[in-house]
Amino acid sequence: MFDCVALVGATGAVGRIVLDQLHSRHFPMKRLRLLASARSAGTKVRFGDQELTVELLEPSAFEGVDLVIASTPDEVSAEFAQWAVDAGAVVVDESGYWRMDPKVPLVIPEVNPDAVDHHCGIISSPNCSTTQMVVALAPIHKAVGVRRVIVSTYQATSGAGLAGNVELESSTRAALDGQIHPPETFQHPIAFNLIPQIGSEKHQGYTSEEMKMVYETRKILGDDTIAVCPTAVRVPVAIGHSESILVETRAPLSVERARELWNAAEGVTVVDDLTNRIYPMPRDCDGRDDVFVGRIRQDISSENGIAFWCVSDNLRKGAATNAVQIAELLARKRAAKQLSV
Amino acid sequence: MFDCVALVGATGAVGRIVLDQLHSRHFPMKRLRLLASARSAGTKVRFGDQELTVELLEPSAFEGVDLVIASTPDEVSAEFAQWAVDAGAVVVDESGYWRMDPKVPLVIPEVNPDAVDHHCGIISSPNCSTTQMVVALAPIHKAVGVRRVIVSTYQATSGAGLAGNVELESSTRAALDGQIHPPETFQHPIAFNLIPQIGSEKHQGYTSEEMKMVYETRKILGDDTIAVCPTAVRVPVAIGHSESILVETRAPLSVERARELWNAAEGVTVVDDLTNRIYPMPRDCDGRDDVFVGRIRQDISSENGIAFWCVSDNLRKGAATNAVQIAELLARKRAAKQLSV
Repeated sequence: MFDCVALVGATGAVGRIVLDQLHSRHFPMKRLRLLASARSAGTKVRFGDQELTVELLEPSAFEGVDLVIASTPDEVSAEFAQWAVDAGAVVVDESGYWRMDPKVPLVIPEVNPDAVDHHCGIISSPNCSTTQMVVALAPIHKAVGVRRVIVSTYQATSGAGLAGNVELESSTRAALDGQIHPPETFQHPIAFNLIPQIGSEKHQGYTSEEMKMVYETRKILGDDTIAVCPTAVRVPVAIGHSESILVETRAPLSVERARELWNAAEGVTVVDDLTNRIYPMPRDCDGRDDVFVGRIRQDISSENGIAFWCVSDNLRKGAATNAVQIAELLARKRAAKQLSV
Repeated sequence: MFDCVALVGATGAVGRIVLDQLHSRHFPMKRLRLLASARSAGTKVRFGDQELTVELLEPSAFEGVDLVIASTPDEVSAEFAQWAVDAGAVVVDESGYWRMDPKVPLVIPEVNPDAVDHHCGIISSPNCSTTQMVVALAPIHKAVGVRRVIVSTYQATSGAGLAGNVELESSTRAALDGQIHPPETFQHPIAFNLIPQIGSEKHQGYTSEEMKMVYETRKILGDDTIAVCPTAVRVPVAIGHSESILVETRAPLSVERARELWNAAEGVTVVDDLTNRIYPMPRDCDGRDDVFVGRIRQDISSENGIAFWCVSDNLRKGAATNAVQIAELLARKRAAKQLSV
């Protein structure tokens, strides 16, 4: 049980879902406080039958807080996380800022729960595209070893927050009416279009979003030899990231065995029956917490490869759900420790 | 110069563009006739300053015709092509029916123009997804050899004809209004969604569309050792297929050399400046005849690989333009033959 939990970024696309999940999953805490920037401070937000007022995110705000769940831009996290740690809190952070810091565990509870034991006050939740891919890869890696991953993403506009979905809707309406709607959130018009760039230019022609999928995958799976070639693309879908993945394994892996591994894996749901036109699609995964896997087939271009299609709600397992699951893991460890004392 | 050209399927999405191109490219012919099924026969269609009446597609319709350009479903082509050949015509066919017939050349004029010399009356134009990919792969194959291709597609609704675009628009309007619009042309709702199935189940979990990309690529490039792992996905975009492609080559290939090869290649336009957010997107390729290549970068997961992003108007280079270019090639060969006699 935590005495006081602070949710930073409570009014954002992900923060709202964290709030829902803390309530619906009966998160063990005595008190919840909501923190946000000056723009949102003062807003009233429902939490079950309570009405909470969003407080200003400032150094003194963390007094008495023992757990922070934060969904903010990188630059915000860079500043406030230390305030929280200095006040004695543990921060579960969804931003990209701390993820590759060697002192910060990068955690998916189904994959590397023990990594939370070695934190210095901050625990990171991975990038949305990485999380769903690694949830799917982890059982394969454990069974036969992942050698190489080639992944092309089809990423929803909500990955850019509430503004992304507002722009998808308003620009689509405009396009249907033959109007021009200048892009603001995205680099280019997203209505009935694709944008093959997410994030900024980072490394040898790859974007920051793409390189997250390389580095974070290796860190979470604890294997720096895993090779990843990612292509990240924004698509005109509101919620649910999809990924076309080809995984090359160190040892042979049949489709039947892959399906068994996924059926047994926590957090994975297999939706795979091409004959009956059944496979994961964003519209079916919206609002669900699992990672959905389908179109499972042998790679016909290499010896040891499996091709598959993976969809997950980017705001949930890709963000809010994973953060809340990390917090639950901390709560369980805390309870076990209190019992053993 | 052809005496009489017949366009079969003149009222379809591709047929309309063939008609435009025959006019705008001043195709060398004395007379054009339009043929279609009973549903469209009798329709009046503009061709330059003429008004042509669509005639019924039947065996006797090919009398006096020396060239046929056809854009019809497979089952229609299976029947009429022999009528045309029996009447002495050469058929340039866009359907999938004849493509893998060993007696039928499968032609992309920039890639394998000499293949047209060995036909028995029918010449096939490849599948839209295959065409743009092979136009991009051909200069690389010629220079260093293509060993393996991993491709994920982002295919426009117009690949399913006019009905596909009607459904995209009407279902998107319905979704914006909170209405349900049952799918008819596609297997599932396409508005703000992705459908990871194009065509029917064909081979070991791959669809017919995917296997076309395997078999047709090998046939056009004349190399059965090329390995292809395709994933074909329908996206809510009206016109322009996009492809995320990783090509593994037999010999090393630098990004600079790949860019040089593409800059020199007929039918390819390089659009590649990530720093300035410039890359091919469907909305920019709509109505253009080239294959657009960008996001060119070294594969960071293998020794000899190049990753890139490829977009082309699926109704043009993917269908109408390629067929008209094949017809133009036949016209040039015919003219050369007449001169040499």
